[in-house]
Amino acid sequence: MARIVMKFGGTSVADLDRIRTVAQRVKREVDHGNQVAVVVSAMSGVTNQLVKWCTELSPLHDAREYDAVVATGEQVTSGLLAICLQENGVDARSWQGWQIALRTDTAHGKARIQSIEGDELIRRMETGQVAVIAGFQGIAPDNRITTLGRGGSDTSAVALAAALKADRCDIYTDVDGIYTTDPRIVPNARKLAKIAYEEMLELASVGAKVLQTRSVELAMNERVRVRVLSSFTDALPGEEAGTLVVDEDEIVEKETVSGIAYSRDEAKITVRRVPDRPGIAAAIFGALSEQNVNVDMIVQNISADGTTDMTFTVGKADLPRARAALTDLRGQINYTDLLEDPNVAKISVVGVGMRSHAGVANTMFGALADKAINIQVISTSEIKVSVLIAAEYTELAVRALHTAYGLDAA
Amino acid sequence: MARIVMKFGGTSVADLDRIRTVAQRVKREVDHGNQVAVVVSAMSGVTNQLVKWCTELSPLHDAREYDAVVATGEQVTSGLLAICLQENGVDARSWQGWQIALRTDTAHGKARIQSIEGDELIRRMETGQVAVIAGFQGIAPDNRITTLGRGGSDTSAVALAAALKADRCDIYTDVDGIYTTDPRIVPNARKLAKIAYEEMLELASVGAKVLQTRSVELAMNERVRVRVLSSFTDALPGEEAGTLVVDEDEIVEKETVSGIAYSRDEAKITVRRVPDRPGIAAAIFGALSEQNVNVDMIVQNISADGTTDMTFTVGKADLPRARAALTDLRGQINYTDLLEDPNVAKISVVGVGMRSHAGVANTMFGALADKAINIQVISTSEIKVSVLIAAEYTELAVRALHTAYGLDAA
Repeated sequence: MARIVMKFGGTSVADLDRIRTVAQRVKREVDHGNQVAVVVSAMSGVTNQLVKWCTELSPLHDAREYDAVVATGEQVTSGLLAICLQENGVDARSWQGWQIALRTDTAHGKARIQSIEGDELIRRMETGQVAVIAGFQGIAPDNRITTLGRGGSDTSAVALAAALKADRCDIYTDVDGIYTTDPRIVPNARKLAKIAYEEMLELASVGAKVLQTRSVELAMNERVRVRVLSSFTDALPGEEAGTLVVDEDEIVEKETVSGIAYSRDEAKITVRRVPDRPGIAAAIFGALSEQNVNVDMIVQNISADGTTDMTFTVGKADLPRARAALTDLRGQINYTDLLEDPNVAKISVVGVGMRSHAGVANTMFGALADKAINIQVISTSEIKVSVLIAAEYTELAVRALHTAYGLDAA
Repeated sequence: MARIVMKFGGTSVADLDRIRTVAQRVKREVDHGNQVAVVVSAMSGVTNQLVKWCTELSPLHDAREYDAVVATGEQVTSGLLAICLQENGVDARSWQGWQIALRTDTAHGKARIQSIEGDELIRRMETGQVAVIAGFQGIAPDNRITTLGRGGSDTSAVALAAALKADRCDIYTDVDGIYTTDPRIVPNARKLAKIAYEEMLELASVGAKVLQTRSVELAMNERVRVRVLSSFTDALPGEEAGTLVVDEDEIVEKETVSGIAYSRDEAKITVRRVPDRPGIAAAIFGALSEQNVNVDMIVQNISADGTTDMTFTVGKADLPRARAALTDLRGQINYTDLLEDPNVAKISVVGVGMRSHAGVANTMFGALADKAINIQVISTSEIKVSVLIAAEYTELAVRALHTAYGLDAA
């Protein structure tokens, strides 16, 4: 007997037939004697329609009203799934954020969960009733409806799993787990049986968009065991379904590198020939920060003639604001040129095993050199090495690294 | 300065353009210095879709989950209208049933309002904020969402008008008021400036489906002044918009007859040659009542040979159940035949002035006789005379009566 939170995304509840399939999956867990809470998203397409209406009526709409409107998508799914479970002989009832109550702050449209009253849910789950919970939503201190931001249902599920002291939080999605890299680029990428929270965070933030970053952070902090699995296919006999995201202590055989991630969402900026004196970096990155431009990789060339070049990456969407901020700064720091290159890709190798293995970066540089791929910027963290390369080499680089680290399936 | 509740039905908020039109109407009242609460229905078609989903998943679905699902329609409209009002510079916020709170009993799907906490709404309306209230919904004692049944938004609006001590409850709909009869039958029917609650009740229940009957009863009990008017057209200059539904004391010049109503929804049943002894009527109508068949008009022929004929009308939809109940009864009461006629129409003349005028029924019988229309059953109340005739004479009868009572427009 286990207590499980199951979360189903929008494509998993896209129509009545898929809701029926979800009900079967939930029933199977109940039939195994498990206590189950289900977190559901809106039927796919519904949230987009509701957002579109709000925006068409007023581009700068009141976020509190936006929340009242878009939260209805999850409410509909929760009621429909409860009806469908009952039709299958499973005791079930729907719960809206305000009924639980799932309390958040007042940051409408991207609220953060503050507390969850789980006692009543636990009491009912212990009697065998399935709690069908509208994801993505909560209630603010002033009794108004809040939403948690895009992908917020993942966060709802993990937070509920923590509050309900669940043994596991199963996130059903349209992929069957976390892979060593994008299978569209490397067809023989392997599904990972387990991955550490820290690895998942690095993979999520560099492009493997399976789980919302906030939900992984929350799972790590609350030590919630998360499983990512498909709502469309079942595991092969004898195989564990999906990928478990857990504490690295639970992973006995740590791979040096668990996965290769890539991102084409960044652009490179070089500020040429800035004076090489104290305060220059602070001036540049202070100006960018004031414009809410996040800077990722940074490299500073060695000085020559009392000047230096500063190279860094920003999100492509932030490029115009970064350019404006730096142009304004020209009078103050006297650089010669501002170079932009949006045609770059960041390739990252990630693995908690790196902590105890030397030579990980060298393997990377060697593999890229063998393919004559030039490295433009390098950055490293405890469990990640990232390089910036020309975007056209993305697939070539990912495949070369996947092979170099022995990740290809047998 | 007045305090007004404005209610807009589904066709009035069917799309974003119509919501914009509604916002303009609300703004006009606010600009006139009035305090305004708005009650909205779901965008037309939305409730039907939600109901269909519930029914497809489970024909006998849990009414509590049905309520959670269908209440979302009004929630969406309330948020969208609040956004649209703000975009027009009007301070506004949405309120769901549970936020107000509008408390009901636990009869999910057809709940009755028990109390409304109006203080916070009044406080905010006094500061100029428009309350945009999701109609049709409330909250049960156990904190679950309830709905009030089809057309329940009218009842929400009237109940709120009472709780908020509003000067008027304006029901915006797709007709521009209450007419002396159906203008599709009598093109020169007149719009009534005022109508008494009791008259409206008789007209509503016999076929003029503008206001939900429960909302008129509530308005009568709470003495709420209701105005029915069009959300699509404006009144002509110098003319009062719509029709006021008020206490008959407010109507100085009482017409003897205010309107002619008709209904083709009933069927006539005759039980031939039942024994003319005590207890027979109780046996027949008791059996029908047990099957939840409502009986409307009843006539019993004079006795001959110790037997009599019992004729009455039931709703057409109830005909099969009525037939079954009476067939079961045959062994017990020994009638000779059971005759059915679904091709009948009930024509009613309604008016509070009847109380002080004799000869109203005679005018009716005379006018029908002039057209050679045979009267099958007659029933009367204090303010109504109804006759049952062959359905094919419906239009002819309505036109003849409209003229006979001097209701034709000049």
